[in-house]
Amino acid sequence: MEVVESVVPQQKSGFFARLKALPCKVKHNIIMVGKNIKKLGKDDPRRVIHSLKVGLALTLVSLFYYLKPLYDGFGMSGIWAVLTVVVVFEFSVGATLGKGINRACATLTAGALGVGALHLSSLFPKEEQPIILGSLVFVLAAATTFTRFFPKIKARYDYGLIIFILTFSMISISGYRVDKLLQMAHQRLSTILIGGATCIIVSICVCPVWAGQDLHNLIASNIDKLANYLEGFGDTYFQTAPEDKDCVNDIKNDKSFLQGYKSVLNSKANEESLANFARWEPGHGRFLFRHPWKQYLKIAALARQCAYLIEALNSQCSSDIQAPPDFTSLIQESCIKMSSETGKTLKSLATSIKAMKHPNSATEHVENSKTAAKDLKSALEAAAIEDLDLLAIISAATVASTLVEIVECVEKISDSVHELSQMAHFKKVEATVSPEKAPQMLLHRGTVKPVLLDGDTDDDHVVITVHDDIASDSPDKQNVKTPKTRVAPASL
Amino acid sequence: MEVVESVVPQQKSGFFARLKALPCKVKHNIIMVGKNIKKLGKDDPRRVIHSLKVGLALTLVSLFYYLKPLYDGFGMSGIWAVLTVVVVFEFSVGATLGKGINRACATLTAGALGVGALHLSSLFPKEEQPIILGSLVFVLAAATTFTRFFPKIKARYDYGLIIFILTFSMISISGYRVDKLLQMAHQRLSTILIGGATCIIVSICVCPVWAGQDLHNLIASNIDKLANYLEGFGDTYFQTAPEDKDCVNDIKNDKSFLQGYKSVLNSKANEESLANFARWEPGHGRFLFRHPWKQYLKIAALARQCAYLIEALNSQCSSDIQAPPDFTSLIQESCIKMSSETGKTLKSLATSIKAMKHPNSATEHVENSKTAAKDLKSALEAAAIEDLDLLAIISAATVASTLVEIVECVEKISDSVHELSQMAHFKKVEATVSPEKAPQMLLHRGTVKPVLLDGDTDDDHVVITVHDDIASDSPDKQNVKTPKTRVAPASL
Repeated sequence: MEVVESVVPQQKSGFFARLKALPCKVKHNIIMVGKNIKKLGKDDPRRVIHSLKVGLALTLVSLFYYLKPLYDGFGMSGIWAVLTVVVVFEFSVGATLGKGINRACATLTAGALGVGALHLSSLFPKEEQPIILGSLVFVLAAATTFTRFFPKIKARYDYGLIIFILTFSMISISGYRVDKLLQMAHQRLSTILIGGATCIIVSICVCPVWAGQDLHNLIASNIDKLANYLEGFGDTYFQTAPEDKDCVNDIKNDKSFLQGYKSVLNSKANEESLANFARWEPGHGRFLFRHPWKQYLKIAALARQCAYLIEALNSQCSSDIQAPPDFTSLIQESCIKMSSETGKTLKSLATSIKAMKHPNSATEHVENSKTAAKDLKSALEAAAIEDLDLLAIISAATVASTLVEIVECVEKISDSVHELSQMAHFKKVEATVSPEKAPQMLLHRGTVKPVLLDGDTDDDHVVITVHDDIASDSPDKQNVKTPKTRVAPASL
Repeated sequence: MEVVESVVPQQKSGFFARLKALPCKVKHNIIMVGKNIKKLGKDDPRRVIHSLKVGLALTLVSLFYYLKPLYDGFGMSGIWAVLTVVVVFEFSVGATLGKGINRACATLTAGALGVGALHLSSLFPKEEQPIILGSLVFVLAAATTFTRFFPKIKARYDYGLIIFILTFSMISISGYRVDKLLQMAHQRLSTILIGGATCIIVSICVCPVWAGQDLHNLIASNIDKLANYLEGFGDTYFQTAPEDKDCVNDIKNDKSFLQGYKSVLNSKANEESLANFARWEPGHGRFLFRHPWKQYLKIAALARQCAYLIEALNSQCSSDIQAPPDFTSLIQESCIKMSSETGKTLKSLATSIKAMKHPNSATEHVENSKTAAKDLKSALEAAAIEDLDLLAIISAATVASTLVEIVECVEKISDSVHELSQMAHFKKVEATVSPEKAPQMLLHRGTVKPVLLDGDTDDDHVVITVHDDIASDSPDKQNVKTPKTRVAPASL
């Protein structure tokens, strides 16, 4: 590392110096790559497992070649099983199932159509057949390619349409020369089905990665990130401001977790693809088939809306004009309360989504934050400050006004999480918080660690009563305690 | 349509009524699908052309089967050309080139490695060979799959890595049974290369769709959308507010183009994929090879930042508290000026990106908007309003403060467009605006139509002098006039 850096000023000594430094540079690069690999695997160990699963599935289908009886049955068509495994095996069960089902259905329909096209062309003289077949391939390929532009079809059936074109073209083009077409088609189809089935079985049976679970965790963790910011913001803005003018720097240096909300701003594409995969998945764990995945997208859109407001709030931190103390004291209390209560609302919503419990406690915090907004309004109405420096108050006023917007937005988020709770039959919970704990929790500030990592640590102070009112259709009674599930990485 | 709706209240009459309504329903659906197809094609006619191009490329490679001399040369391997065309042909030249080059390189290296693996295994006794080959396939597939998780590698080489696993597995697995492996590998490789070359040639020669051009247009149109909002905002907020309390409704109903900025909020994924494709493209039209595509992403990130602020501005419109007239009159002028001048800056930046001309005129508007921000500050400092209703002013104060933020953000956008102009050697232009036109332009408000559609209409009042200072490396002197290029659709 040192050597690499010292090379820069000696650039004039040229080629030989660089040649001398080369081994060090290479060594340095190898170490860096090694560190990156380790980090990638540590960030989400499922990546390592997925890689091994792909190897396993490939080894399984290669038995078509290695075992004599299987090879005698399928012959060279076994290669289609290998091909299917490589292109169909995806990270999550939903994506693998989606691709597998797409491939199987598309191969079947295109295969049937292809055989039909060959039959049609066989009615014409041999020299005219290529023209008939060529035109059919042209028309079908063009029409199917155009269909791929429909956004809804692209989201769910894109791969199927590609395989449809592929299979139809292969059968109708190669059918012109191959004689035992039906036997070939049959062998290929069965190996493709076997390859697809291998993928799906390995994907589901060996440490499955459920896209639905990932989406669920992602939404909860996004809401949690917003909560972290809001819980910390009020105190950071109003208390450290007099000591340290540039509160952005402060936030950046000391409280980097307050920047976590930034990843929520651009999470739309990721959420939508996870929701698309999740729809392919069968019921698993706490999620039944036809779990309301669309509602998650609605919550995610509102969370993004809230993140935009937080972004606006954050940009106010860079203002270096200090509000006069009498104005600050006027709004400080209600602003800190709005910020911390919306933070608590979101925290509680995140926890309840995570644990799939009814978000009871959130309602109380929503009411508190609305009361704080009303308090702010009446404080401002009643205020009679003379000789007010308008310029000085404008930044603080903006913060207050944005916080009021956030209160409204968080109420919407809470409503839609309640809807989700109804739609997905979340468990009803009565949380009795011991009274001496309550005020402490209310004063809890920015340093709260994410619930996702230590959701169980405070449980000893909370008595939880579970009313299992959906006993008939809930196969997961044993999951009443908050299960420790991992947070979905944003890069999936 | 009427019949379908009238069915709902008659639900009790049941099955027969629904059966009776079925033909109408089907007819209605068919008409809807037809309309959708027409709209999809009309929105971007390149989609229709792309579909025909895929058909053409497939027809071309099917000649491997239909023409006897070609079939005698390549035999069944011709099918690999068909397969390559179906999977490699993409909408833009960059995407097709990227996939084609990935596929070719991956096939070559994996083919060589596969043959090496077979040679290695041939040193062992026949019954041990499957174990050696199987372990090699397992290790290589797992390692390559893991590599796909690196974000940078995934963005550019994902397809190549899949094909690498595919080819290596196919050769080393099937090589165990096939004798004439080298001949087979040679035939396949050449048909894959021919298939890839067909895709690339058709993609470039028949109405090419350049991802770089699309990215360029997308960034310009995003900036233009922000400009539309800002140009219209000041007047809408301050002038229509006294007549119509709910200015959001007003904006939504009458000025739907003011909502255009919303699409900028979620444009990141689209921009990044276009930039990735653009890097594969050779020089084309006004873009040289190694055009600074990264700088576009920088501008796009700043534009998104500005869109977040506009979103915050927009949410203030829903406030139904009216600011007192003396406060409004205090800030109105400078706010309208900030809004319109930032709008003009962005408009002028969008036009100059579009036309690849140096963004001279933007600098003036940036200065104007900064002056307006200063004016606001001094107006607020000098103000001495007695008995101020703090609650009533808070929303208007937030608008003013957000506009100041927007002025800062727009200045950054202007700076980065200037950087782009330097990096990409935009043409230097001296625009002499006729003096009687200037004040009119300054008073121009929300009803300005997007420059992208009628960019040339005002040119008769502007004298343009072109200093071609990069004559040596600019092959496109004839393109000095703003070319009419289409706007990239957001769905690409």
